[in-house]
Amino acid sequence: MFNKFGNVFSFTSWGESHGEAIGAVVDGVPSLIELCEQDIQPYLDKRKPGQSKFVTQRQESDTVKIYSGVFDGKTTGTPISLIIHNEDQRSHDYGDIKDKFRPGHADYTYMQKYGIRDYRGGGRSSARETAMRVAVGAVARKILGESITIRAALVQMGDIKVNRENWDWQQVENNPFFCPDSQTAVQWEEYLAGIRKKGSSVGAIIEVVAEGVPAGWGSPIYKKLDSDLAAAMMTINAVKAVEIGTGMAVANMSGEENADEIRIGNDGKPEFLSNNAGGILGGIATGQPIVLRFAVKPTSSILTPRQTIDIHGNNTEILTKGRHDPCVGIRAVPVAEAMMAIVLADHKLMHRAQCG
Amino acid sequence: MFNKFGNVFSFTSWGESHGEAIGAVVDGVPSLIELCEQDIQPYLDKRKPGQSKFVTQRQESDTVKIYSGVFDGKTTGTPISLIIHNEDQRSHDYGDIKDKFRPGHADYTYMQKYGIRDYRGGGRSSARETAMRVAVGAVARKILGESITIRAALVQMGDIKVNRENWDWQQVENNPFFCPDSQTAVQWEEYLAGIRKKGSSVGAIIEVVAEGVPAGWGSPIYKKLDSDLAAAMMTINAVKAVEIGTGMAVANMSGEENADEIRIGNDGKPEFLSNNAGGILGGIATGQPIVLRFAVKPTSSILTPRQTIDIHGNNTEILTKGRHDPCVGIRAVPVAEAMMAIVLADHKLMHRAQCG
Amino acid sequence: MFNKFGNVFSFTSWGESHGEAIGAVVDGVPSLIELCEQDIQPYLDKRKPGQSKFVTQRQESDTVKIYSGVFDGKTTGTPISLIIHNEDQRSHDYGDIKDKFRPGHADYTYMQKYGIRDYRGGGRSSARETAMRVAVGAVARKILGESITIRAALVQMGDIKVNRENWDWQQVENNPFFCPDSQTAVQWEEYLAGIRKKGSSVGAIIEVVAEGVPAGWGSPIYKKLDSDLAAAMMTINAVKAVEIGTGMAVANMSGEENADEIRIGNDGKPEFLSNNAGGILGGIATGQPIVLRFAVKPTSSILTPRQTIDIHGNNTEILTKGRHDPCVGIRAVPVAEAMMAIVLADHKLMHRAQCG
Amino acid sequence: MFNKFGNVFSFTSWGESHGEAIGAVVDGVPSLIELCEQDIQPYLDKRKPGQSKFVTQRQESDTVKIYSGVFDGKTTGTPISLIIHNEDQRSHDYGDIKDKFRPGHADYTYMQKYGIRDYRGGGRSSARETAMRVAVGAVARKILGESITIRAALVQMGDIKVNRENWDWQQVENNPFFCPDSQTAVQWEEYLAGIRKKGSSVGAIIEVVAEGVPAGWGSPIYKKLDSDLAAAMMTINAVKAVEIGTGMAVANMSGEENADEIRIGNDGKPEFLSNNAGGILGGIATGQPIVLRFAVKPTSSILTPRQTIDIHGNNTEILTKGRHDPCVGIRAVPVAEAMMAIVLADHKLMHRAQCG
Repeated sequence: MFNKFGNVFSFTSWGESHGEAIGAVVDGVPSLIELCEQDIQPYLDKRKPGQSKFVTQRQESDTVKIYSGVFDGKTTGTPISLIIHNEDQRSHDYGDIKDKFRPGHADYTYMQKYGIRDYRGGGRSSARETAMRVAVGAVARKILGESITIRAALVQMGDIKVNRENWDWQQVENNPFFCPDSQTAVQWEEYLAGIRKKGSSVGAIIEVVAEGVPAGWGSPIYKKLDSDLAAAMMTINAVKAVEIGTGMAVANMSGEENADEIRIGNDGKPEFLSNNAGGILGGIATGQPIVLRFAVKPTSSILTPRQTIDIHGNNTEILTKGRHDPCVGIRAVPVAEAMMAIVLADHKLMHRAQCG
Repeated sequence: MFNKFGNVFSFTSWGESHGEAIGAVVDGVPSLIELCEQDIQPYLDKRKPGQSKFVTQRQESDTVKIYSGVFDGKTTGTPISLIIHNEDQRSHDYGDIKDKFRPGHADYTYMQKYGIRDYRGGGRSSARETAMRVAVGAVARKILGESITIRAALVQMGDIKVNRENWDWQQVENNPFFCPDSQTAVQWEEYLAGIRKKGSSVGAIIEVVAEGVPAGWGSPIYKKLDSDLAAAMMTINAVKAVEIGTGMAVANMSGEENADEIRIGNDGKPEFLSNNAGGILGGIATGQPIVLRFAVKPTSSILTPRQTIDIHGNNTEILTKGRHDPCVGIRAVPVAEAMMAIVLADHKLMHRAQCG
Repeated sequence: MFNKFGNVFSFTSWGESHGEAIGAVVDGVPSLIELCEQDIQPYLDKRKPGQSKFVTQRQESDTVKIYSGVFDGKTTGTPISLIIHNEDQRSHDYGDIKDKFRPGHADYTYMQKYGIRDYRGGGRSSARETAMRVAVGAVARKILGESITIRAALVQMGDIKVNRENWDWQQVENNPFFCPDSQTAVQWEEYLAGIRKKGSSVGAIIEVVAEGVPAGWGSPIYKKLDSDLAAAMMTINAVKAVEIGTGMAVANMSGEENADEIRIGNDGKPEFLSNNAGGILGGIATGQPIVLRFAVKPTSSILTPRQTIDIHGNNTEILTKGRHDPCVGIRAVPVAEAMMAIVLADHKLMHRAQCG
Repeated sequence: MFNKFGNVFSFTSWGESHGEAIGAVVDGVPSLIELCEQDIQPYLDKRKPGQSKFVTQRQESDTVKIYSGVFDGKTTGTPISLIIHNEDQRSHDYGDIKDKFRPGHADYTYMQKYGIRDYRGGGRSSARETAMRVAVGAVARKILGESITIRAALVQMGDIKVNRENWDWQQVENNPFFCPDSQTAVQWEEYLAGIRKKGSSVGAIIEVVAEGVPAGWGSPIYKKLDSDLAAAMMTINAVKAVEIGTGMAVANMSGEENADEIRIGNDGKPEFLSNNAGGILGGIATGQPIVLRFAVKPTSSILTPRQTIDIHGNNTEILTKGRHDPCVGIRAVPVAEAMMAIVLADHKLMHRAQCG
């Protein structure tokens, strides 16, 4: 219940940051889909740490292996076990965090809940777990097929937003920030170098867009597509807010502005004149692009000392040395794409279940 | 699967706006809790339409009845069936919406998904369904007990925000907007009267606060408390964004600012110096107040004609007469409290399951 | 969780024997299926008490009403609420069972679990709840369509078994025992009259057969079709054993005898030469008839005094007067058909979800 | 959904007979339980093939490894990943079964469902998967603690039943059949040697007993303890029937015989004078021993040729050489104990969730 995500297409992830391996078991995959490790690895490579100075320098090849559910290069309908063996388990990094709670980190709450925690590298609460989501997301994309495109980008870092007029999806691959605007990417480079030098960190906003989703996927009331997407994004480490379409800004819109008017297009199909809804009405896809954004808080592991307490109940302070991301939002970009793919694959199968 | 919410404490709602009744079946309620209709009715009365000129003039007494699961004034551990019989079913209101899709409304997507829709008063997608959430929320509060306080308020209507310096929970009961700031309430009165006169509508932001939630409730990874809360709020009609704690604004914070520092208080207990986390770290409650906000879009039923299509695929336009809310966000306030209570009750029982 | 059955097609039942009503909410029903109360009522009428002297004389018209999910005579894809209002609530029957635990009855365990119980007519543990299963089963049959036939019969009462050589499904409708063998029906009539006269009761075995189920429905490992069927039958009151195909008797078969050999039939389709498997291999339907049997224990409410204790912990004895079934297995026959239909409808949708 | 078992305490298994490894992810385990591989291995060793001439001669050390969820020798509340690497993957055994369907085996139905199957050693439908259940069962026992004893025995092989007057749990460890009666064990030895010599196989009945289960565990209606147990046993390969307590034989009992009378014992606690109920009434544990039996069909892989068809739709025949169990029921004994432990651990946590 606690570590499973999804309904018909679902997965359960396992593993801690500094354990021997991390993994996920994927259930409900239709049979006869061509699948091999090379279908998954490129997505993991995008997320992989150590690729630029702007993400943690932890070195992991993050090589995924399929242990089950695939035969003769095709899925068999049985569960697919994906495993990544950990390579870089420096055991000398976490002296201080063993006894002290990092403000803004899950150290404190895990201890309150379970009375024990694997403090090595954040244990289960480490962003390392998200590698498995990326791997599962690659399987989800296979279920969705070529007609659906899922892309994400970083649209704000600290207080610097991308200029949407310069938006170019091609650019996302050309800079270490997944930035769709080459000019903003240059700004960010200097900005984040400064943050990193100070041993500080900064938040970010990610936008995810899914195109080609057929009208009708999703469900009303308690399996709304937007509800499942919000839940999915909110399970990603450090996420504190999720917006669908126009998001928080709908508050100061009028009904006239917000209404996405509809026309019959030249091809005889309905066409919306705007997309404030972000592609979802009443929990069900309209056929427009599904658009969402979420905010990632700044990494809590910083060099500046912060006041905290230790596990014995004493006041103390902590500063976190070691390999950390000045903007953990960057690595959330491929994770966001994966979670979008996972929710959509699940809703594809749920829709097929009820509506044939 | 589609109309059930929750895990251990859960409910399934049923019913359409203009059907004979609406209801919910509540499962997993512990036994021996005192419960009667009078425990539920006051919450329904708060949400009830027709109480001021600022909400729909539909007249419903919204009287709830308990049909099962209670014996001798106490819960028995078996499912509790709650039913509200509909009274006001004007059948002459929906001529135009029978054949035309209202922009911004779920009419279009229900039809795309199911090939049929109950167009009378919005059918299943009507805000009427939320009455059942409020009723279930009252049961959830009973499970949570007196030590947990859940309150919500409207904090923004259109572009007018409350002045947080004037925040007074008492005021929430004293105006038709659930506004915690008596001065803003006066402003809103005039503002919304203008909106209403024009036959327009406006969006809003609601804030929900739960105090007294013990540290440790919630779960890591895929049953994060914030993930379940985001999902819950996003299931409410017209909600387009959810924020936990500092929310979207974490994007332009530094790690230093965002870190909620911890001290040992005079009572020997941990004390946080700020609450950017909104009371949740790593998906688990910290013991601080849980704080979230969400945005509700403006009602899509407005008097200004909007371009749309009809079910035969012709271009047309629509304007919606009849009884509608100029700011549907107002009635979302008691619903938000209810959904918070429901998620917390579920997590209380889930926590007890795993952690004793 | 506790009162819900099924996965994609699912229902939650509610209500106590002597409450004001009982009901069920059915979720996951595909849209555009023609459905009205007259589709459901005949199945309820088959199960209805008071139809012969061999079942409880409680008089209930058991009239079902559809409260939601159907519009213009067709399902809309939203939840279907089914309610039967109780009519016959004699309040003077249960003086003795208020304080004493009937041996073989759930009185004792409900009290141990919940610390409270609705003792009126058995409360939630009354066979009355099974009326809702029959109603839901009628909806499930609509999902399955005409090509699948589900029939059940009583094949053993006490130590008198039907003669399988006389099996005639037509006969099932012609006697008050759902007996497929008219000669055995005559025997049972005399036999059960004797049991009833003594104020005693007797057990029974029911056989359920589903024909037309396509090969491929079901799932391996933990959603095996036979596992779900066994669970389903075991949820029926008083059931103590379930057999698939040859059942317990496989124990003394050899591999040679047990193997259902396969040939290509004249129509070019695979044909099995026997059906020890009861139509299920590895949890998946073979395309043969699905055959199961289950045993129902004798009613625990009897006229002979039995030793027991009371709720205060004193030794005492109890005999149960009032309206009771000398062979509660009889009324389990339509319930068994319903549970078979429900499991198959769920597996139809689950199969469609994964396998298209 | 398809490969997960359990509600609060749950697991998902993965892997095929001749894949590189098999595994299970266990979710919902309370924290701070001492757990290491040595707690699990002994149960696997009991089930391990190749230990006598009466079970398959496949040689596997079946060494389990814990990959996550345990830190400093204690569970952390996060998912526990258990993996067994396969060693003995003879690739030359399955020439014939690649193209032909073995009667009585899941070959045919997997192909019908998925259009593909991993034919090597039975793939996913191999009894090999049950090793993971045994491993998970060992974790479940840790949750249940010392006060609950779970034991199983083979009580019938072919037509030879144990003599219950000789029942001695100690004997179960002393013969290769898990037979509680040393005299019957001798008979079985000769009997099964004959079966094996002929290349035939035979069915069996297993009995499982759980002592120390507190009254109150379980749930009424759709999460009945007996329903969950029946489902659990029916998921084990080759099981065709499940009985609780007196089982099928309740059919020819009278209400007087079947009623388990209750007295207050010398210790002031309720005491049942018999246990026809098998320790469960209304789906809830009575506090008596929980007793169930199930029947396992004879292995379908036999040396005698059987008529069948091939994947191209031609009539043919098949005989299965290689390493197979003449009585696969033997190895089901430790699996049955494991499944009992798993269901009870889940119900312990579910009971705690609802009833504190």
